[in-house]
Amino acid sequence: MRKMRRKGLASMAVQTVATTSESTVDLGPATALSCRECGHRVPLGPVFACEECFGPLEIAYDFSAYDTEELRRRIEAGPANIWRYAPLLPVPADVAGKPNINPGWTKLVKADNLARELGVTGGLYVKDDSGNPTHSFKDRVVAQALEAARAFGFTTLSCSSTGNLAGAVGAAAARAGFRSCVFIPHDLEQGKIVMAAVYGGELVGIEGNYDDVNRFCSELIGDPAGEGWGFVNVNLRPYYAEGSKTLAYEICEQLGWRLPDQIVVPIASGSQLTKIDKGLQELIKLGLVEDRPYKIFGAQAEGCSPVSTAFKAGHDVVRPQKPNTIAKSLAIGNPADGPYVLDIARRTGGAVEDVTDEQVVDAIKLLARTEGIFAETAGGVTVGVTRKLLEAGVLDPAKTTVVLNTGDGLKTLDAVAGTGLTATIRPTLDSFREAGLA
Amino acid sequence: MRKMRRKGLASMAVQTVATTSESTVDLGPATALSCRECGHRVPLGPVFACEECFGPLEIAYDFSAYDTEELRRRIEAGPANIWRYAPLLPVPADVAGKPNINPGWTKLVKADNLARELGVTGGLYVKDDSGNPTHSFKDRVVAQALEAARAFGFTTLSCSSTGNLAGAVGAAAARAGFRSCVFIPHDLEQGKIVMAAVYGGELVGIEGNYDDVNRFCSELIGDPAGEGWGFVNVNLRPYYAEGSKTLAYEICEQLGWRLPDQIVVPIASGSQLTKIDKGLQELIKLGLVEDRPYKIFGAQAEGCSPVSTAFKAGHDVVRPQKPNTIAKSLAIGNPADGPYVLDIARRTGGAVEDVTDEQVVDAIKLLARTEGIFAETAGGVTVGVTRKLLEAGVLDPAKTTVVLNTGDGLKTLDAVAGTGLTATIRPTLDSFREAGLA
Repeated sequence: MRKMRRKGLASMAVQTVATTSESTVDLGPATALSCRECGHRVPLGPVFACEECFGPLEIAYDFSAYDTEELRRRIEAGPANIWRYAPLLPVPADVAGKPNINPGWTKLVKADNLARELGVTGGLYVKDDSGNPTHSFKDRVVAQALEAARAFGFTTLSCSSTGNLAGAVGAAAARAGFRSCVFIPHDLEQGKIVMAAVYGGELVGIEGNYDDVNRFCSELIGDPAGEGWGFVNVNLRPYYAEGSKTLAYEICEQLGWRLPDQIVVPIASGSQLTKIDKGLQELIKLGLVEDRPYKIFGAQAEGCSPVSTAFKAGHDVVRPQKPNTIAKSLAIGNPADGPYVLDIARRTGGAVEDVTDEQVVDAIKLLARTEGIFAETAGGVTVGVTRKLLEAGVLDPAKTTVVLNTGDGLKTLDAVAGTGLTATIRPTLDSFREAGLA
Repeated sequence: MRKMRRKGLASMAVQTVATTSESTVDLGPATALSCRECGHRVPLGPVFACEECFGPLEIAYDFSAYDTEELRRRIEAGPANIWRYAPLLPVPADVAGKPNINPGWTKLVKADNLARELGVTGGLYVKDDSGNPTHSFKDRVVAQALEAARAFGFTTLSCSSTGNLAGAVGAAAARAGFRSCVFIPHDLEQGKIVMAAVYGGELVGIEGNYDDVNRFCSELIGDPAGEGWGFVNVNLRPYYAEGSKTLAYEICEQLGWRLPDQIVVPIASGSQLTKIDKGLQELIKLGLVEDRPYKIFGAQAEGCSPVSTAFKAGHDVVRPQKPNTIAKSLAIGNPADGPYVLDIARRTGGAVEDVTDEQVVDAIKLLARTEGIFAETAGGVTVGVTRKLLEAGVLDPAKTTVVLNTGDGLKTLDAVAGTGLTATIRPTLDSFREAGLA
């Protein structure tokens, strides 16, 4: 099923590669694109699906020249953003000097209050990606896609989006002097339109739903009108996706070059989780962290839980769902990397779990109340799943655990709209005392 | 007039100091509180007005033991937050290990696109404080107040607020395990209530306007019911205010230990601007930067421009105004530090200027479009004033200029609510071409 779905995209991919297969670009240690399914290799270019088997293309690297200690020193002396890891990413060595929004190096918060509340004794950390320039982890992946777009000579940065991605693309394109053209369903909430439109790029409403928007974007990529356009999560997807590796790098470096025992990661397409695993594996192979077991846990909202449903049923195949959850940034009913997520959760001894919207809201409030971190609904999903898996004895409370918060509560205020005043009083001490506040 | 207004507060301050004047607290290099007007000294304590002359109390330090190069190395080896400057702040040496929200070390963005647009050739930078934990500079000052509250044995953190401060206090108190109780006008917009309430502290609506809220808080400080309460911007104000010095430290360190030639700072109470000047002076005295002239420029919204009005009229006294502007985080009609701002602007050869709400909105869009930074209305004020002062020839385009953005556009979405779709099309290539997007 997975492969059938990709067939249409792959034929487009082949068309596109024909125009660029001769190009040689400087993307640092990246040497080629390699099919995740069959290993077939093609030159670096704006393609995303294997011409042989329609599998997803990934970046292949040559890290063979690196000396571990020299690499560690180079990283530690690097800038306080993702470009400190330039030697491990598909970007040119001088990337830090180019105009980009320079996301990353966000806080890894030691969440002692939350740990106490949840009974975690082995150390609980929140990787808080709301500290990124547009306040979501999407800045990481868009920053990578932007560098690929620059390398391929593209002049327009584009995407389909219903939220975080639109802002990240708009901001990055503005800084880098690219044209941006973002496609969204025309009836999106006004607040989300404003957050995307403020960066001044073209923001095009499509009369239709998100599926219609995506279908249109796929058509545009195959058309001459789309020439010179980098769709960050379509024809630039292999580069884009690598941005999520930096979450793994940062977590380990911030833990003192140590693997966590357990990581809880949200699942939308599943790409982030697979790339975090890839990043951890790279650090092990490079000798930057000690090789010992870690477990990766995936988190979904019950209203869009195709991967956790498959995990619990013991299936290898992910059956698509029609999303219905407040966790809109995770609401991908047919997650492209779902099967790989299942593989990783099972291989590492992790799990995939889901929580109800009510549990999402409770978890947002729990994280805010204990750690002063106001998370997006996606953060409510990971914290909620962490709680659920601890209660079920699936997560080990004695192990070092990292929970991802990938977005900012200011973007999903509606989720906690019920939160309000604890009291209303007259401006007098008597009224204050009567309310029991003294 | 300034002193008369303070009289009531000062008598309360004297009451409070009586209970704490014997206390010895460890606040690092801070040695005493010193009156800005008459120099009278009192021990470190939760007091804010001079018992002799009702002038504002400030922190006095002993920096005499510092060796310049050793201090520089110590700072550079410190954490990526304001605590790298612990040797220069009223906090204990081990502050970085205590639970706090650890703000600061936000990006100093080289704004080359904006520079081109404005004709600046000497280097234009935006100090983007939207990267703080609750996305405004208030995290800096609240983090300081929290450490003072801890030192004085307070258990409740409090403030009056209509926005950014409420969230910063709620988040910091949550992380540090303090009770928080924040007072706001009861009829605040629902979105702002949610942003403050989500941290789970007490959020009390006062039936009245912001002045009523402030009057009530002053009463509460003088009452036994307020014992053990640290009001971050009242009885902890001397400590709180010092947090703004870190903006000056970071700007200079991020410029490579160099003073900027020109800084544009927003004015609400005026405290931030005066503390930035204090921070720059300290760096000069400590030998951390070369002593050369710098100019400080203040920025206000026309609808609340008491300081710029006084500056332009050549007055020393600031006449209060009734605020009417979209820049609500700057809407203090009777700014306590207004006269000091006038002194600093005049002494350094700077200026104070104001812009209309329309210019604020234009400037928000300009910054977003050129640099991918979505600023709060306060950021629109500083960018708008920068443009206006450049056009007037008051700011020198050939000099290194730093503009402060102190907050996040997500908190003042209404200001740019008019921003919207650039086109609406059907999901077809024909419709795309008809709209002229190809």
